[in-house]
Formats: sequence, structure tokens, C-alpha cells
Amino acid sequence: MGALHEGHASLIRKARRVADSTASRASTASTASTASKGSVVVSIFVNPRQFGPKEDLSRYPRPFAADRALCRNERVDLLFHPSVESMYAGDHSVSVHETTLSKGFCGASRVGHFDGVCTVVAMLFQIIAPDIAIFGEKDWQQLAVIRRMVRDLRMPVKIMAHPTIRENDGLALSSRNRFLTSEDRSVAPRIYESLKARSKEASEGEVSVARLRRDLIRDLSAIPGAKVEYAEIVNESTLSPMKKIGEGGTARALVALRLGAVRLIDNMALPSPR
Amino acid sequence: MGALHEGHASLIRKARRVADSTASRASTASTASTASKGSVVVSIFVNPRQFGPKEDLSRYPRPFAADRALCRNERVDLLFHPSVESMYAGDHSVSVHETTLSKGFCGASRVGHFDGVCTVVAMLFQIIAPDIAIFGEKDWQQLAVIRRMVRDLRMPVKIMAHPTIRENDGLALSSRNRFLTSEDRSVAPRIYESLKARSKEASEGEVSVARLRRDLIRDLSAIPGAKVEYAEIVNESTLSPMKKIGEGGTARALVALRLGAVRLIDNMALPSPR
Repeated sequence: MGALHEGHASLIRKARRVADSTASRASTASTASTASKGSVVVSIFVNPRQFGPKEDLSRYPRPFAADRALCRNERVDLLFHPSVESMYAGDHSVSVHETTLSKGFCGASRVGHFDGVCTVVAMLFQIIAPDIAIFGEKDWQQLAVIRRMVRDLRMPVKIMAHPTIRENDGLALSSRNRFLTSEDRSVAPRIYESLKARSKEASEGEVSVARLRRDLIRDLSAIPGAKVEYAEIVNESTLSPMKKIGEGGTARALVALRLGAVRLIDNMALPSPR
Repeated sequence: MGALHEGHASLIRKARRVADSTASRASTASTASTASKGSVVVSIFVNPRQFGPKEDLSRYPRPFAADRALCRNERVDLLFHPSVESMYAGDHSVSVHETTLSKGFCGASRVGHFDGVCTVVAMLFQIIAPDIAIFGEKDWQQLAVIRRMVRDLRMPVKIMAHPTIRENDGLALSSRNRFLTSEDRSVAPRIYESLKARSKEASEGEVSVARLRRDLIRDLSAIPGAKVEYAEIVNESTLSPMKKIGEGGTARALVALRLGAVRLIDNMALPSPR
């Protein structure tokens, strides 16, 4: 969606590394002697279909010149920046719909959001035909939904995840952080701190999801001005509830809250003790 | 869906002709000197997701050995015949959804049918990655919905339509014709006769869609044992209603009716006079 920050730059650098060490699909199809490096494609498209009627579509930042400069600087081969009209015909009537992973968490409050995400990502995959697509882990639910779409529709693309990039104080980078008041910005790192505390407790042997979740909600609710939307501990792939850390898949804590008018999300793995 | 008949054979022969005169995508990507003929792929998959709970999934014919022999005989390069389990994971949760063209006609009585069709065709396109896909005109609504899906999701495949193949007496070939009683089979060609009569009237100057439709319904309703499900005259691309032949696109009559337990569909262009 553009408004590129260091999190995006990190994704692009990962793509550059992967592309430079991988022959692209086209060169695989030709003879070995002509094999070349892969290309890095970045899409910048503020997708109206993933915003709800009361969401921040119109005020979503669109600093295109700066985004383009960042892409050039990171040696992006192709920047795909279509208009809304070129993506969606006036009588556009086809969407991609995910019914399980997209229901709870952000999907519960953002009705139609993940259908909008799946539809535009499916379109981008058809247009670009990437061998590999790299998504940040910050929107963990989105990553899980995209993986499911690729699996279920049998899309010939490998999804790679890339860790969340954070400010020095731990706040996950987001294009929406700029809208935080200075007071809200000063307390926002407490989201990360609470996630990290739970992750540490889990790695030290705490297995009760109920206890970890209770403490997570306690900490988040204590952030001044915060309205917690959800704080859940789930199986990282299926996003289904877990009872005990280490039983039935890897656990991950997913949280969303509002600070003033800004909605923030974050997540962290809760590892079993080794 | 298999149970191949002369209609399918005609589609395959068209594919063979097109493939033999067209370089495939892979050979386009390599150097010109290695360009080769395209390949013909046939999929045979009785897709449970496009059958309703009261429909004929279990008794849909599956004469695979005969289908395979027909494909061999027609020089098909690859026959793709997956199991249901290999197509749909137990927790499959992603579908492709068309909201406009699929609503009326067959979509009105067959709830979920076109989502099932779109989903499986999208999957087949991802798996096979065809340059060109050929669909029969017999299921005109399906053809229109597939074209819309390809347009809206920006799928890199060209959809070709191929005319309906008919018995000598005009009945459109269908794998379901074998279930007609001999009495029903003897009157079934009257569907074609009524469509042909309307097409002739239109080509001779009848422009009133209301009159053409009234006569179509009159003829179909007079077929002994027939229960007319719909008989509509629409814009052939948008499937939206028309008032006058020749105004706002090409007209096509779409009909569906039941003869005993068998549901039959057919359609025909209603050309403007030249």
C-alpha cells in the first residue's frame, strides 16, 4: 500500500537477496546457459476494497515520490503502481473469499477486509506471476490468510514471511504510526513489551494459555488511552484457539488495539521451552 | 467433468488445431529457434463443489476408461484427472465468488453452483497455466461467468468459446441426455426448434424481446412433461435484460427446463437483421 518505511525496505532487501541468488521462472524455462538473476517487483496500490466504509481510505498516506525513490535506492527492478480504475472495472464482480482464518481477529471488526486483501493479492499474482512473494509478519492474520489462499487455489507462488521491523523502543513499524499523538506514541511500545514478556514466560515454561492471555490483556488494558480490540493466543497456522503452549502447533499472540484514532496490531511467537 | 461426448471431442479437436498452430508460453520464453507446438490438456474432474445438496453428484456418469480412450484418440497431450482429496484439503476455505452474472438463470436455482465452477476453474488455471482455455457455448452463463472471472482477476489466459454440438434432430449434446426416458428424448428437440424459430424471427426483423420471449415460453411450455425453469433474452456478455434486439449488445436466448428428472439447458444468438 505504499507509504514505505524501513519495514518495507527490509522486505525489499530480502527480495533482492533472494532474487540475486535464484534464477527466475522465465530463465528456468530457457536454456541453462541463458539463466539470469531474478527480478524484484514492488507493488504500490492503496486497495479501496480492503477498507471498510468507516475506515481511513481517503487519509491513508500516499507519498509516491518518496516511495519511488526508496525503491530505486533498493534496486527494485519494477515498481507496479496501477490506478484504481485500471484494477477494478466499474462492473467488477469477482472476489476471492476466505471463510475460516479471516473470520476472527481483524476480520471480526473489519468486515470484507480479507476478501479485499485476497482479491487484490490474487490479481497481483496473476499480473506479476512471481515465483516468490514476500510478506511481513506484522499482519500475521493476513500472512496466514494469504498462505491459505495460495494453498487452496493452488497458486504457483512461494510465500515467504519476513520478521516485523520495530522502532528502537519496540513499536512495530506501520504507516499509521505517524498519526499517533506524542502521548500515544510514548506509551505504544508497551504493546511490544507485554508481548515480549509473555514470550519470555512461555520460553521459561509457562504453558497456560489462559494465564498468558490474562496477563497480556491486563498489560494492554493498562496502557493509557488504549482500547483493546482483541488479544488472543492461537495456533500460528490455523489461527484456532490453543489451551497449552506446545500442544498442537506453535503458539502466537495476536493483538489489536486503538490508541486514539489509530488502530495498531502486533504479534509474537510464544515458544515452548527447549 | 468427463463423460465425454462428441461435444467435448469437438472442443478437443479445436484445441488440437489451435495448439498445433500456436507456440506455447514456454517456447515463447525460450529462443525462437526452439519454438515448438503447443500442448493440449484436458481436465476431467467431477467437481463436488458445483453440485447442490439435492443435485446429481453421486449419479453423475464417470466412464473414465472411455474418456481416456477418447482423449488418446484425439491426441491429447495431458489428461489431468485429480482425486477430490488432492484438489480440496479437508479444511479448504477459499473460494472465488462472482456476484452479478451468476445470480440469475441457473444460478437462481443452483445456489453456490457458479462459485464452485469459478473456484475449480481458477484452481485448474493455476495448476495447468494454459495460454488458452476452450469452453463450449452450451452452458452460456458459465462461459460468461468464466470470462468475467478472467477479466476481473486478471488471469493470463485467453478464453475461447466453441459452438454447441447437437444431435441430428437438434438436441444439444449433454452427458445428462442419457437419463432421458425415450418419450422425453423424443420431444426434447423442440427446445432447439423453438430457439431456432426465435433466431429466424429476429434475423427477419422481429425486434420485440417481449414478443420473442412470449413465444419461446409458449413453445417450451407446450412440450409434454416439460417444466420450464427460465427462458430469457439477454445481452450475451452482461446477461442483463434487453428490450429490443439490436439495442445495447448482441441478444441471446437462454433456457432451462426439466424433462422428468433431467434438467436441460440450451441457448442461441438472436441476430439483428443485416
